[in-house]
Amino acid sequence: MSILDAFFAGSRLALSKVISHIENNGADLSRLLPVLYAHAGKAYKIGFTGPPGAGKSTLVDKLAALYVQGGKKKLGIIAVDPSSPFTGGALLGDRVRMQNLATDENVFIRSMATRGSTGGLAVSTSEVAMAMDAFGMETILIETVGVGQVELDIADACDTTVVTLVPESGDSIQALKAGLMEVADIFVVNKADRPGAAKMVSELNIIIDLKRQNTGWELPVVATEAVNGKGVDELAAKIAAHRAYISSDSRADQHRQRKIRATLAHVLDKEMKSLIRKRFLNEEAILDYIKRIQDGSSNPYEIANNILSSLKQDKP
Amino acid sequence: MSILDAFFAGSRLALSKVISHIENNGADLSRLLPVLYAHAGKAYKIGFTGPPGAGKSTLVDKLAALYVQGGKKKLGIIAVDPSSPFTGGALLGDRVRMQNLATDENVFIRSMATRGSTGGLAVSTSEVAMAMDAFGMETILIETVGVGQVELDIADACDTTVVTLVPESGDSIQALKAGLMEVADIFVVNKADRPGAAKMVSELNIIIDLKRQNTGWELPVVATEAVNGKGVDELAAKIAAHRAYISSDSRADQHRQRKIRATLAHVLDKEMKSLIRKRFLNEEAILDYIKRIQDGSSNPYEIANNILSSLKQDKP
Repeated sequence: MSILDAFFAGSRLALSKVISHIENNGADLSRLLPVLYAHAGKAYKIGFTGPPGAGKSTLVDKLAALYVQGGKKKLGIIAVDPSSPFTGGALLGDRVRMQNLATDENVFIRSMATRGSTGGLAVSTSEVAMAMDAFGMETILIETVGVGQVELDIADACDTTVVTLVPESGDSIQALKAGLMEVADIFVVNKADRPGAAKMVSELNIIIDLKRQNTGWELPVVATEAVNGKGVDELAAKIAAHRAYISSDSRADQHRQRKIRATLAHVLDKEMKSLIRKRFLNEEAILDYIKRIQDGSSNPYEIANNILSSLKQDKP
Repeated sequence: MSILDAFFAGSRLALSKVISHIENNGADLSRLLPVLYAHAGKAYKIGFTGPPGAGKSTLVDKLAALYVQGGKKKLGIIAVDPSSPFTGGALLGDRVRMQNLATDENVFIRSMATRGSTGGLAVSTSEVAMAMDAFGMETILIETVGVGQVELDIADACDTTVVTLVPESGDSIQALKAGLMEVADIFVVNKADRPGAAKMVSELNIIIDLKRQNTGWELPVVATEAVNGKGVDELAAKIAAHRAYISSDSRADQHRQRKIRATLAHVLDKEMKSLIRKRFLNEEAILDYIKRIQDGSSNPYEIANNILSSLKQDKP
């Protein structure tokens, strides 16, 4: 039986192998991904982003437990940890808390380090989610540390994006400036027992009120204490409400199109990057470019420009 | 007088405007960058990476002060803070400590948030460094939080890369696994007064010894307490030693070629991404792709593949 046969027969080991294959950019990936794509599209993907130390892992942990207790089996969890080269210990520590979940045969947990991923973070995360989706996971929780471009990519890849802040995250105005309002479907103020939490919740609500757009979705702010489970049921309710909102007759098609658009852009970027490496940055060409740059007859910008303008499209 | 004239006449305001132009991907950037490139190449760039909270800002601060006292004027500092959407307060706090430096007319400090940068982090950071270089800064310190791909890019962009760890960063073996050895030219164990620091230093030294490659450069591990300046002079000495190493007759050309190679790859990626958006992802094309994906007659992978295989090269 091939790995793919085992995968579609429900083998968790096969799922694990398929994910590794994606992460390692393995052979024949260009044939595997369309197959997964054809079988995916049924899972509901919830993204969690926010600063390091905001308690995202705990929040995901508790929410996952709530889902499993509530009968939402077939749960996938992806923990993307861009800082894992440094905080490997913390990562393991987090995941140890998930041991109860990990032994549940319907829950599949995968930690991903982003280091060395040639295709970039977003592509492989969304492809790993796609693999879980094709495998039959009904709900997929994706947790990542929000850093620059990352949270935008997560918002593209997920159906509902939860931005988690803590009172220590500082000024709420900062969240507004940084464009988090455009990314978040739900705000969580975690560690709500700490000083400044209530102030942060009310500030966020004021900002949301000021920036209110007539999209029909009122950005909620949920106060949680993930560590003892407080507010997690309310968060689950808001996620369900957001799901109902984007699944409504008038929204569903728009939402699907946004997802397709994002996938297309990601796939093209990744493939193009790989094509450039193969076609233009072979060793012989590079040495020639370096020579021309070193003798001053050209520069990297001119060379890039020449390469790109030499590309003609065969058919429109 | 044009901004570029003012820039080359030494106007700090013009430098500031040029950097903003780069960050905002402003008009005519494709004409500006080759000009900057032609004037750059003289600055020595030192990169600092490591986990959040490792004290990199303080370290950079103290090292900068040491350089300024030692007569190394014309100092540029770039603080890339990928998590600034969240930690805006902390960022400002850090920079407040630099106030003494900031009022020095030969020191130029720029904080960059990475959020929303369309070209990706690495390109604009190295382009901002290039602007400072072209402006006449002799030394440029670039500080960033190490997350996934970021520290690789920093290593590409800089002449000397300092990886800062703290005893709390956990297992030294993790640093090895994560490939930090390949990135680091110098390891710093900061907050060396904390428990576990001595153990971390000796473990790192053992690992370095085991992995020793005959490159001629022995990866040093420097213990620092940046907050009170301890070890900063030793760090400066190691940086100087690394600079002498890569500038030696037998190394210099190899080092320059590595930099050119990295620049070329970054520029090509960025330009390619922008070309894809312009040429293939115009609204009409996207709507057609979405239609084909939604009716099941195609998928994002096939579409990307078709686009890329339609690209022919005009001249070799």
